[in-house]
Amino acid sequence: MDRRKLDLRKARILVTNDDGIHAPGLKVLERIARTLTRDVWVVAPETEQSAVGHAITIADPLRVREVSDNGTVFGYAVNGTPADCVKIGLKALLTEPPDILVSGINLGANVATNIIYSGTVSAATEGTLLGVPSIAFSLNTFIKPDFSAAVDIAVGMVKNTVGKSLPKGTLLNVNIPAIAKDDIKGIKVCRQSSCVFQVAFDKRSDLRGIDYYWQGGNMDFSEPDENADIHALEKGYVTVTPIQYDLTNHSFLDDLKSWDWPTVPADK
Amino acid sequence: MDRRKLDLRKARILVTNDDGIHAPGLKVLERIARTLTRDVWVVAPETEQSAVGHAITIADPLRVREVSDNGTVFGYAVNGTPADCVKIGLKALLTEPPDILVSGINLGANVATNIIYSGTVSAATEGTLLGVPSIAFSLNTFIKPDFSAAVDIAVGMVKNTVGKSLPKGTLLNVNIPAIAKDDIKGIKVCRQSSCVFQVAFDKRSDLRGIDYYWQGGNMDFSEPDENADIHALEKGYVTVTPIQYDLTNHSFLDDLKSWDWPTVPADK
Repeated sequence: MDRRKLDLRKARILVTNDDGIHAPGLKVLERIARTLTRDVWVVAPETEQSAVGHAITIADPLRVREVSDNGTVFGYAVNGTPADCVKIGLKALLTEPPDILVSGINLGANVATNIIYSGTVSAATEGTLLGVPSIAFSLNTFIKPDFSAAVDIAVGMVKNTVGKSLPKGTLLNVNIPAIAKDDIKGIKVCRQSSCVFQVAFDKRSDLRGIDYYWQGGNMDFSEPDENADIHALEKGYVTVTPIQYDLTNHSFLDDLKSWDWPTVPADK
Repeated sequence: MDRRKLDLRKARILVTNDDGIHAPGLKVLERIARTLTRDVWVVAPETEQSAVGHAITIADPLRVREVSDNGTVFGYAVNGTPADCVKIGLKALLTEPPDILVSGINLGANVATNIIYSGTVSAATEGTLLGVPSIAFSLNTFIKPDFSAAVDIAVGMVKNTVGKSLPKGTLLNVNIPAIAKDDIKGIKVCRQSSCVFQVAFDKRSDLRGIDYYWQGGNMDFSEPDENADIHALEKGYVTVTPIQYDLTNHSFLDDLKSWDWPTVPADK
């Protein structure tokens, strides 16, 4: 299909997330999709899958459960990861591929190096791998989410992306500050910050006296570059970062070739 | 520490994997490390974690089990993912950070876009995030692995990497063909191929008549570029790909800025 000629009102939208089929953010995104088109499919994890990254399920069977809402089919719940949902959605559930995939709206920002842990972003990456233009949406809060600003922004983003050409292998990662609509400073195209989550472990004992650890920590927000996602989000901007899955450090290839590599047994 | 002056015989090596603490490939890598230095730490998943990608465990407690081999401590098993192992290893188990992290030796290649699903590579990515030079090793077979060529290559790779400077945020992803040592054509520095795994689902019914799906499929090997990992591996080369976790598509940033972005409620 020539996507520049795509009529959004006839577009098929696939909605997924990593917070699970019952998450409020999924329902918000599904409603947004239904305001744009009648052809909306929801395929989401049966349970919360936060921080599963790009995990897929290959050693266990996957099950798909039809989920209804007030008597009408709302979508499909899958006992797997976000990437599983996208794969099974595209390859086993949908009769035709979607024109766009939206993932979220996640509770909690997906910025800086934390992107690699994100199920929300991985769902959009999987869509991109399978040739579907994809957008991941995250709201920068874990508590009492107010999606009202996010709704306007997501509608605009989807409208703006359908009909444009994303480069092959590139998705959009959108983060929305959890502030009042009028306080949002604008939309900013950003690079991914290199800030790293400062992980820490809390060692405890269970009731049998056996040790266990909780994983936690804090994000490092010391990003000075205003063109980096975490900085712009903190300043009140909606951030849009083009993400790709070519992980090659291309600029280092020539230098690496000049390393004095060991001769393998039969270096010819 | 000035790594150029690092004496490998005094180096601390952290060994991990995604196939689990009992995997033969881990034992091989641990033995390689012990031929190089006395200061070897093994922290690996309690059970197989293939295809978990960069998942981390944040909603369940982690437990660490000391594992012995013939009466001496072999290492630590963690009931989590490869990324969990690296995090808890560096932040809770090791007294000082390692000088190098090695992950593997995985059964099955980690090349092309399949890298994003790889627990083996994610362990090395996590090491890199936490500032440790890291190498992921994979052998291109799932059955009857012969690690003899891989041993020579891994020893050479570790020796060559200790004392060199990897760029900040870059690790080495090494894939070894499962062929006789004398048939290996050499070591080749490669980019990540953009080939995509062709996923397919097999729908079956269980003994209660309820449907389930197995996820499977085949890798697309149609990579014409001899500088791409999957092509070179198929041709009998050991491939070395520099991998980074900055996922930004930098070349698309300016174009994306020129998109006609919607005005957010308070675009100022």
